[in-house]
Amino acid sequence: MPQGQPLTVPRDGLTTRARRNAPLLAVHTGAGKGKSTAAFGMALRAWNQGFDIAVFQFVKSAKWKVGEETALRELGRAHTERGVGGPVEWHKMGSGWSWSRKAGTEEDHAAAAAEGWAEIARRLADERHDFYVLDEFTYPLKWGWVDVAEVVDVLASRPGTQHVVITGRDAPAALLDAADLVTEMTKVKHPMDVGRKGQRGIEW
Amino acid sequence: MPQGQPLTVPRDGLTTRARRNAPLLAVHTGAGKGKSTAAFGMALRAWNQGFDIAVFQFVKSAKWKVGEETALRELGRAHTERGVGGPVEWHKMGSGWSWSRKAGTEEDHAAAAAEGWAEIARRLADERHDFYVLDEFTYPLKWGWVDVAEVVDVLASRPGTQHVVITGRDAPAALLDAADLVTEMTKVKHPMDVGRKGQRGIEW
Repeated sequence: MPQGQPLTVPRDGLTTRARRNAPLLAVHTGAGKGKSTAAFGMALRAWNQGFDIAVFQFVKSAKWKVGEETALRELGRAHTERGVGGPVEWHKMGSGWSWSRKAGTEEDHAAAAAEGWAEIARRLADERHDFYVLDEFTYPLKWGWVDVAEVVDVLASRPGTQHVVITGRDAPAALLDAADLVTEMTKVKHPMDVGRKGQRGIEW
Repeated sequence: MPQGQPLTVPRDGLTTRARRNAPLLAVHTGAGKGKSTAAFGMALRAWNQGFDIAVFQFVKSAKWKVGEETALRELGRAHTERGVGGPVEWHKMGSGWSWSRKAGTEEDHAAAAAEGWAEIARRLADERHDFYVLDEFTYPLKWGWVDVAEVVDVLASRPGTQHVVITGRDAPAALLDAADLVTEMTKVKHPMDVGRKGQRGIEW
């Protein structure tokens, strides 16, 4: 566990306070479980600090992550109604982005992913949120639906102190290079290997 | 990502339904970030299913994980007040367990850890909760404060469908053998390596 003591103090001319507020780009990749789950766990800390949180779910069907969505929306409600924590937005690509008039179809996943990224880039430019989860965003990058170099440029030049967490297998090297924090989740043992099924309250 | 399709169907005489409700023992280990964070992310799913959740934090000072604690307690409050999700209990060893009259001191961490495990074993026998997080529990095991063989026995014979998630580095081999799901979080890159400090909303 990090004990808050860096190994070296960088000669970057920044104060400790400035370094504490530096915007973080984190990537959770690898074939193991916990990539998205840890991103949503991070969102709990961000929420408690009053950060404005936005989740963008790429690729997966609406069936997935209902538990996390319901829980984080409940925390957003607590912010609205009781003034605790921060606000929460949750957008998913599955059946068309919430801000879009276009209904999603099987054929236009590539277009929907590009549209999702364009919206995120606009929000980063506007400093709309404090903490972004781009869930399963590595897949549109891998499949060429969204340009990796453009993503890295936009993230590298984002204004303010916006934190971004990106999840998914096979994160491209350019994204890993740009990231401040990279964790690989490695599968050591999985119940499905021995024939167990996805479980209520565990897988969804 | 698991798509819900097991590689093989085991000849264990169980129905799919029984297998779906099988109690899960998960271990998050490794030197990377996200072990505890992913456990609390799992708790969001469990909460949404109405599971009764209990978190037991071993070792760490009360300063840590305040964000996750506040957020999960808020979800527990939503259950009590609005009837959504499940109830949440959060116990930490730092300044003495909440059920204990003994105040914690620096000297008796070993005794406090043993007391915490004894309480968990009682609750497992009573089927008190549906979803347990034993956060940083590998350390008392590693340091010999709690007996690994006893823990494995109690977990292996726990009644009902109680899910248990254990986090921490250096999980003992016997625990990994007993687990259904093991994920190793591997550090690929960490901001503290380049001298950045722990950050508000990220580290706590």
